[in-house]
This record gives sequence, C-alpha cells and structure tokens, in this order.
Amino acid sequence: MAEGILRVNIEKGEISYEDVPEDLQKLGGRAVTSSIVADEVPSNCHPLGPNNKLVLAPGIVTGTSAPSSGRMSAGAKSPLTGGIKESNVGSRFAQTMAKLGLKAIIVEGMPEDGYKLLHISQEDAKFLDASKLSNIGLYEAYEKIHDEFGDKVDICSAGIAGEMKASNAGLCFNDIDGLSSRYAGRGGLGAVMASRGLKFIVLDGKGASGVEIKDKEMFERGKKKLVKGLKEHDVTKPGGALSSFGTNVLINILDESGGLPHRNFSAGSDENAEKVSGEKKADMIKELGGVRPHVCSPGCIIQCSEVWTKKGGKDPVGVLEYESVWALGPNCGIYDLKIIGELNRACNDLGLDTIEMGNTIAVAMEGGMLEFGDGKGALKLMDEIRKKTHTGRLLANGADLVGKALGVYRVPTVKGQSIPAYDPRAVKGIGTTYATTTMGADHTAGYTVATEILSVGGESDPLDPSDKAELSKNFQIHAGFIDSSGYCLFTTFATLDDPETMEGMAETIGGVIGEEFTVEDMEKMGKQVLAIERKFNKEAGFTDKDDRLPEFMREEPLPPHNEVYDVSDEELDMIHED
Amino acid sequence: MAEGILRVNIEKGEISYEDVPEDLQKLGGRAVTSSIVADEVPSNCHPLGPNNKLVLAPGIVTGTSAPSSGRMSAGAKSPLTGGIKESNVGSRFAQTMAKLGLKAIIVEGMPEDGYKLLHISQEDAKFLDASKLSNIGLYEAYEKIHDEFGDKVDICSAGIAGEMKASNAGLCFNDIDGLSSRYAGRGGLGAVMASRGLKFIVLDGKGASGVEIKDKEMFERGKKKLVKGLKEHDVTKPGGALSSFGTNVLINILDESGGLPHRNFSAGSDENAEKVSGEKKADMIKELGGVRPHVCSPGCIIQCSEVWTKKGGKDPVGVLEYESVWALGPNCGIYDLKIIGELNRACNDLGLDTIEMGNTIAVAMEGGMLEFGDGKGALKLMDEIRKKTHTGRLLANGADLVGKALGVYRVPTVKGQSIPAYDPRAVKGIGTTYATTTMGADHTAGYTVATEILSVGGESDPLDPSDKAELSKNFQIHAGFIDSSGYCLFTTFATLDDPETMEGMAETIGGVIGEEFTVEDMEKMGKQVLAIERKFNKEAGFTDKDDRLPEFMREEPLPPHNEVYDVSDEELDMIHED
Repeated sequence: MAEGILRVNIEKGEISYEDVPEDLQKLGGRAVTSSIVADEVPSNCHPLGPNNKLVLAPGIVTGTSAPSSGRMSAGAKSPLTGGIKESNVGSRFAQTMAKLGLKAIIVEGMPEDGYKLLHISQEDAKFLDASKLSNIGLYEAYEKIHDEFGDKVDICSAGIAGEMKASNAGLCFNDIDGLSSRYAGRGGLGAVMASRGLKFIVLDGKGASGVEIKDKEMFERGKKKLVKGLKEHDVTKPGGALSSFGTNVLINILDESGGLPHRNFSAGSDENAEKVSGEKKADMIKELGGVRPHVCSPGCIIQCSEVWTKKGGKDPVGVLEYESVWALGPNCGIYDLKIIGELNRACNDLGLDTIEMGNTIAVAMEGGMLEFGDGKGALKLMDEIRKKTHTGRLLANGADLVGKALGVYRVPTVKGQSIPAYDPRAVKGIGTTYATTTMGADHTAGYTVATEILSVGGESDPLDPSDKAELSKNFQIHAGFIDSSGYCLFTTFATLDDPETMEGMAETIGGVIGEEFTVEDMEKMGKQVLAIERKFNKEAGFTDKDDRLPEFMREEPLPPHNEVYDVSDEELDMIHED
Repeated sequence: MAEGILRVNIEKGEISYEDVPEDLQKLGGRAVTSSIVADEVPSNCHPLGPNNKLVLAPGIVTGTSAPSSGRMSAGAKSPLTGGIKESNVGSRFAQTMAKLGLKAIIVEGMPEDGYKLLHISQEDAKFLDASKLSNIGLYEAYEKIHDEFGDKVDICSAGIAGEMKASNAGLCFNDIDGLSSRYAGRGGLGAVMASRGLKFIVLDGKGASGVEIKDKEMFERGKKKLVKGLKEHDVTKPGGALSSFGTNVLINILDESGGLPHRNFSAGSDENAEKVSGEKKADMIKELGGVRPHVCSPGCIIQCSEVWTKKGGKDPVGVLEYESVWALGPNCGIYDLKIIGELNRACNDLGLDTIEMGNTIAVAMEGGMLEFGDGKGALKLMDEIRKKTHTGRLLANGADLVGKALGVYRVPTVKGQSIPAYDPRAVKGIGTTYATTTMGADHTAGYTVATEILSVGGESDPLDPSDKAELSKNFQIHAGFIDSSGYCLFTTFATLDDPETMEGMAETIGGVIGEEFTVEDMEKMGKQVLAIERKFNKEAGFTDKDDRLPEFMREEPLPPHNEVYDVSDEELDMIHED
C-alpha cells in the first residue's frame, strides 16, 4: 500500500483510500489533523452530529528510528470545548500506522446504532461487528482483541464512556504490553469516534513497508545529535529524573513551589503530597511487582513510563502519570497511591481522561456529592459511570457539566476543559497557556513549566506575570511543531537547553521529507498550525473573552504564596497577534 | 417613602435606599433592569458568583389604572445563557412594588449559607430568617407567608430549584389568589436570587402612596383610547379568544398551521393535539371547578388567565399557559391535560420554568431516560428534583445540560435556552427571533407569531423566509419597549391593528412621566434597550455565531410542510445593524 489517507464511513458502509493532497505531504500529526478538521468539518456543527469527523495522523518522523517519536494526533471538533481539538498520544499504534503508509484515517458519518471494529492490515481494511466488544471494560476488550487478532496488533478505541457519547470520553491506545493505558484523552474524542459508529481500530502491521526516509544521510546525522542530546540532559537521560521516577517526579517539585493544586484548587501545597510522590511511587512499584522504567512506544530513550500494579503484579494499570496522580489524588484530597491506581485503572477501563475525571470528582466534592478525601466514594462514582446511571452519565461529561448541575462556583475549566496539575496563580506562564490555547486548559499546549519550574531554556519567576505572555506564546508555537513532528514533548527539555540537539531534530524532519528543514522551519510550522486552529475557533464563535481563566482564580488568593492570577487581559490578547 | 432604589446585601447585612439616577427616572421594567445589570454586573462574571446581581423593576405605568399593565422585569446575568437576561411577569407584586415607590430592588452579595426573607412595607425593609420556609414547596410556603404576614402581601421567591442553584430555577410570584403560579421563569433568575442568600421578598402594600402621574389629563386621554382598543379587538376583548380560552387557544391554531412541535420537535402537527386544546381545557375547567377567565394582576381587560384545579376545585394550580401545556404536553408526547396540570403544578411548586422543563423532559425522552408519552415517568422525574437527587439536579438545569449528559444531538436550544412552542421551521419569523434575541430562545422577545399566524398588524407567510429578519427586528424593538412600559405583550394585538390604540398607549406613558411621548419614542426606547443588552452580550463573548438555531433545524425537514429553517445567516446578522 502506498502512502495514503484512509476514509471510512460506517453509515454508508464505505472504505476508501485517497492520495495525500500536496499541502499535507510534508506534514504530520497535529498539522494534518487540524488541517483536515478545518477543511472538512463545519465550525458550527454539533460535535456529536452527522457533520463532525475524527481524524488520526502519525507524526512526520513517527515509525522511523528517530528516538522518542512514537507519537500521533487525534483531531475533531471537541464535544467538551466546542472548538477544534488535537489530542496527542504515544503508542506503538502510531508507529504501526505510519509504517502501514497511513498519513491519516478519517472517520465520518453517523449510523443509527451498533458498533463496528475497523481492521486494517497491509492487505486491506474492513469493518467487523464489534457488538461483543461493547459495554465491557477496555482491559478485557483488549485481551479479547489480542486473542482474536494476535499479540502484535495495535488498538485504538472508545470505551463505555464513548458509548454514552460523553464529553470526557478519551481515545484509548495500547501500551507495548497491550494494556489499554495510553490515551489521547482530552476533549471527548472517544465520543466523536463512538458517535460515528466506531468502537475499535485494529492495526495489523505484519509486512508493513515502513516509513520512507527521503534523505537518509541527513536523517542519520540529525538523529545522532538528537540521541546524544537526550542521553546527556539531566531530565531525559537514562537514569535521569524521568526514567527514575516518571512524570510523577513533579509532585514534590510542584508542591514545594506552591503550585500543586490540592482539594479543587484550594491550596498550592500540603504536607501529604509526598505520600503520592514519584519517589514514593518508584519504591512502591518495586514492592508491588510492577515495571519501572518502561516506554510508551518502542525506541524511546526517555522511558518515563511504567507499569503500576496491585501486589504481586496483579491487575496491571500501565503508567500513572503526574497529571493523573494529581487529578485523582491531591486535587480530590486523596493521598493514597493504591486508591489512585484503582481510580486510574477505572478511567483506563471505561475510556476516560484522568485529568478531566479527577477535576470532575473534585468539583463533585466541592458541590457536596461526596467529601474531599473520600477515595472509596470516588471509586463508587466510577461504578456509576460503568453502570451508565444518570449520575454516571453526568460524571462522564466532565467538571464543567457537573459544576453546572451542582451549582458550583469554583469550577477550574477554560473553554469547558479542566485545568491540569499546575495552579495558574503560582505558575503564571502555564496559566497563560491554559487561558489562551485553542485547546481549552491544556498543559501540553505550551509547557512553560519547563522554564518556570525546571529552569530549562532559561529562567522565569513563576509568580511574576510580566513575561508570561511571551513565554507562553513561544512554548505554544513549539508545541504546534512538536505535536506535528511525532516527537514526544519531553524532547523539549534537551532541545531547549542545547542548540545542537534542536538542530538534530530539525535534520531528522528534513531527512524524512527530503528537503532542508531548519529550526526556523519548526517555528513556521508551529505558527501555521496555531493559525489554522485559531481560525476554526473564531469561526465557531470563540472570542478573546474565551481566553480567560475562571473568575475565582483572579479573585481568590492561593496559599502559600497568596497570589491571584494577574496576567492582564491585554497581555493575553497579544498572544494571538503576529 | 419617596421613589427610590432599594439595594440589599445579605452577605454584608446591608439594606439601603438610593435616589433614582436621572437616566433611569423616565424608564421602567426591562429598560431599568438591563441598564442596571449592564452598569453594575461585570459581563464576564460567573452567574452564580459574588459579582452577579438580581434586579427587579416594575414597568413605567405599572401600579396606575392603565389597563393590563401589572407587569415587571427581573434581570441579571443568566446562569442558563451566560448573557444578560430580562424575564417578564404579570403579578400584583409588580403593582404593589410600584405603589411602594420602588423603582428597582437590587440584590447583591454571596453569603456562605442560609436563606433570608426580605420584608418590605411603607415603613421599612428588613431581613427575616427564612429557614423554615426553605426546602418546602412554594404552594405551602406561600400559604405560610400569607398566614404570617396577611392575605394581601405579595411574594417573589426562589423555590427548591433555586436552592439547588439550578439554571432552570425561575422567579415565582403570586397570582391574585396568592398561588405560586406567576413566573419570571426564564433564564435561571431563581438561582441568582438564591445564590445571593435570598429566598423570598414579601411586599406589604398597606398605606402605599401609589404611582405619581405627572400629567393626569394626558394619561386619562391615552387610557381611554387604549381601553377602547383592547375592548374592541377580537383577540383581546372580553369574550374574545384570550378571555374565552386563554393563551392555550393557540394549540389548535398552531397544530393546524403545522408549527406545533410534537415529541421534541419531530413533527409540526398531530391528531392528538385537540385533546389538550384551549377549547377542551375551557370545558374541563368548568367541569372540574376551576375559574375561567381570570387575571394575572388587577385591572386587566384581556383576562387570559385561569385557575386550573383537580376535580372539585382541589389543588389549584393557577394558569396553564399555552407554552406550558405545549412544553409539558405535545412536546413530550403527553396528551392528557390532567397530567399536564400535575406537571405544571410541580414546576410551580419547585420553582421551575415550564418551557425549559418540558423541553428538558423531551430531551431526556430522546436520550432514553424515559419513553415519549410517559406522563407518569415525567412526574417521577419531578420527584427527583424535589428530592434533590443527582438526577434531579441534572434535570433542574435544563435541556442543554441534559442533552449533553445524555449525548443527545437534537437539543432545541439557542444560547442554552429552550425553544418555545412554535417550530422555527414552520413559523420562520419566530425562529428568527429565537436565533437573534440576546435572551436565548424566547418567543416574547419578538412575537412575530401575531402577524405570521394571527394576521395581526398585516400578513406574513410563516413558511417564507424572505421577510422574516425585518419582521422579527420590528417585533424585537417593540418588545424592548413593551417590557419596559409595564404593559402586557398582548396589548400588541390591539395596538398593531389600530393606530389610535397605539397612540393611546404612548399617551399613558407620557402622562406618567410628564412629557410628550410618541409612538416614535416607543421605538426609540425599544432600540435603546436592545442596544444595551447586545453590548453586554458582546462583552460577555457572544458573537453572530451564537445567533443561530440548532443544526438539526437547518438539516431535518419538519412534517407536514417538510420545511427546514432557511433564513440565511446574512439576514440574521442584519437584525442587529442600525
């Protein structure tokens, strides 16, 4: 199969391959998904209606031997935010998709009922009935799929949350052990997929021809520099912070900085934080029989992942990311990793984004549905979702909806999407990203935390509002590129601190597309992506007024610094100027 | 007490009288509430947060002997739409408020918990504890209030729905028998009042000095013309359509026109409609022992109201309006007036807007929570609200939220507010009002039905999209004036068809304010009100993209005419041009 776009429509029973339009040929990931969504999805359509489409696309270098590049993008009009959405994930699925020559998969149409499985191999693509795989948890479903189609297949799916068309239904992918633990979680893309009548995409990569590298010499030259940079940087190197403790190393760091939100963004630090720290978790993984470090996809140097399990290696969850531990832990007043692990497993099993789910539970706690710290109560709420009760349906739709249903004032969302694990009042750059990105509150859309907290790429006082618009803008542009490239965002630690590593990354892109590609071209691509997305959102009715944090974060000081978020509206509005 | 503005703040325990600013002195109703909200409420505030305010204001002629003028406005930033809201109601409360010299009541502040009753008399205003009157139905609460404060007091309240801070919590007022049946229902103003810590306002009008009429001769001259016009027009005259059958006379008329939405806007007519018609209802009221005709407030010539009861005059509900009967009836596939009466009584008792509630139940039916036509199931849902269960909290927040929770595509809302009883595909002028008014879908904001269906003020084919922008615009301007004047919207039937009646109305306004006031001045006032509201919404982030009907109404033809809504976006956007 030559490189192409696979378009599927269950309503019409159609599967077709299309040539890649010229303007997409040298792009990948987010640049491809956002371009197709902007071109084909009416900005004013209902996200669950007949005119929305789900688009998947691997990054430019995904499927090659470039390090830490097993990433891909999923895009659509988001049921959660009402705007354009790109949700990024690391999974072998991305690599297999690229190796099968698939530039993109476009899923469209709105069949009346029933669910299909789309099976794609080097030979063909076909719809199979998925009814036996519906209404069961994804861990079990993934086992059944591997039993039927082989251990090596890769899987993308919508879970029970997707079947409910819930705004917090993520897209779930397999980790290298076949667990349903890697997520393009944010923005409800699982509901978009399920409302197209599709529950699973199964990729069989046997005999795949692989990704063509047009200038191998340039690619290898760049790769060498990039590998060197990643292996030398303190954050990304083997045995460094990320491989030793995972992303969860940030719990202690953020708590010490006063920016770890506890109990629905009521405090920025708490003595209990260390109970759920990365250091504590690494110890417990050894004790319980899990795996640490681990990768989300083959060929990663950084190895931030892990397999969290119950005692004796039972009920493996997959990774417990920092943002997940925070959301389901401190943000709910829960400081017990075992309970957090169970909550995370429930999210993975039901097809829910952990960040949104944790905020949802915290808002439910604030609204009186249960007490802060009530881990068992939180687990019961997950059962409500599993049973598809009215309460469960409400909870599966995220913090904003629960906040409205319970009449809660303190709802930490932007554009309807929950704020992740860094309080905007104590880390004002990331707050600026939350406010202004087209994605709704999203840390990966402009990860200023690298500079503000980890002093990567320079220094910026997290409490000083004055330089944050510029800082966030630059990180947002870089994210626009990174999410298109196929590289993991964490490469940024190494590339920002070392120009040669950055240059190496550019050269790997150039090698794949077969023409010179510079660091300036990265910026150009990032800007292009942001412009496409901004235009879509504007046409969908978004204005500068949507680029604001919740009122309470401007009015209520956060201990211990007792700061409010005070980057001015004017600064925020500058971000989208050229 | 001289004419003034009463400002109350339970959080601070403050009650104060202020002079009326010059720019408000010659205004009333909606012109006053929208001006104060625009001046004092930040457009970007959270509707349930500390910065929102509830404003009440009687119309200009309210409290005088002008006919059919017992109307007032309630305003705030709406929890349902996120925009500015004016909700209009006819109740003796309005007249008493005017006679007590109150140009406006402004309720502000956000106390932590507990509820107060604000008691206002000619002598003073004071907060009383309202805890015993909380968490009980409003029919019972109104009885208790009358027992304590006398039969003659007037009451404004938030119900159990308001206590839940629900977006569909209306503001409830008394009818002339003291029943909790007159509503400024739309937009969640009950939640705004309750979140200010206020459950009840009780007015004791004893000894009130009355409304000053600055030019009595002009007033009497105008009043004579107006009374004559109202008494002669077929729609408004005693024994005419409205006094004989109430607003519900429209059921048969709309069903025959193909514009009565059945089963969540799936069909525009159905043979079952006549079972819930105005004619049928008038017969049943006689049979059951209710009252027909009746008035919402003293001094009304039109007398469209009634008292619906169970057999033997038991459990009096108050009026069953056309839009309520439609919402809780045909729109839910329910064609049994007794069940509709029970549902309406539950809404009145809990403090819910009937239009929003009916649409909510219909969307819940579409989403599989219960079957269309299941009246007993619908009554059980009302019990969920009464018990404040999670399901009840969800339902009390309106159709939009329920649609999101259940993943429903066909949700008939604009700006988050439910579309009332006239399908936009078969009555395109009213569809144009729904789309473009700042209020969210609201028939009273520009009642083109008068011309399209009743041939008042000319003729306009309801299926022809070409003249609807102009028609709606003119009706919206007139509504801006009428809602400020204190006159009932139904006066429009008579004034539109007879220039002398219209002139008489203008003269009554001139008489009260003591200067010449012409028909052109009406238009000027209407435009001024719309401009204030439009500006607020724009600052709150609304754009032309919010002035659109739901996607399904542009895509799905409505039987029997099989028309879609096809007024162009360009026409819609013209409405707010000068």
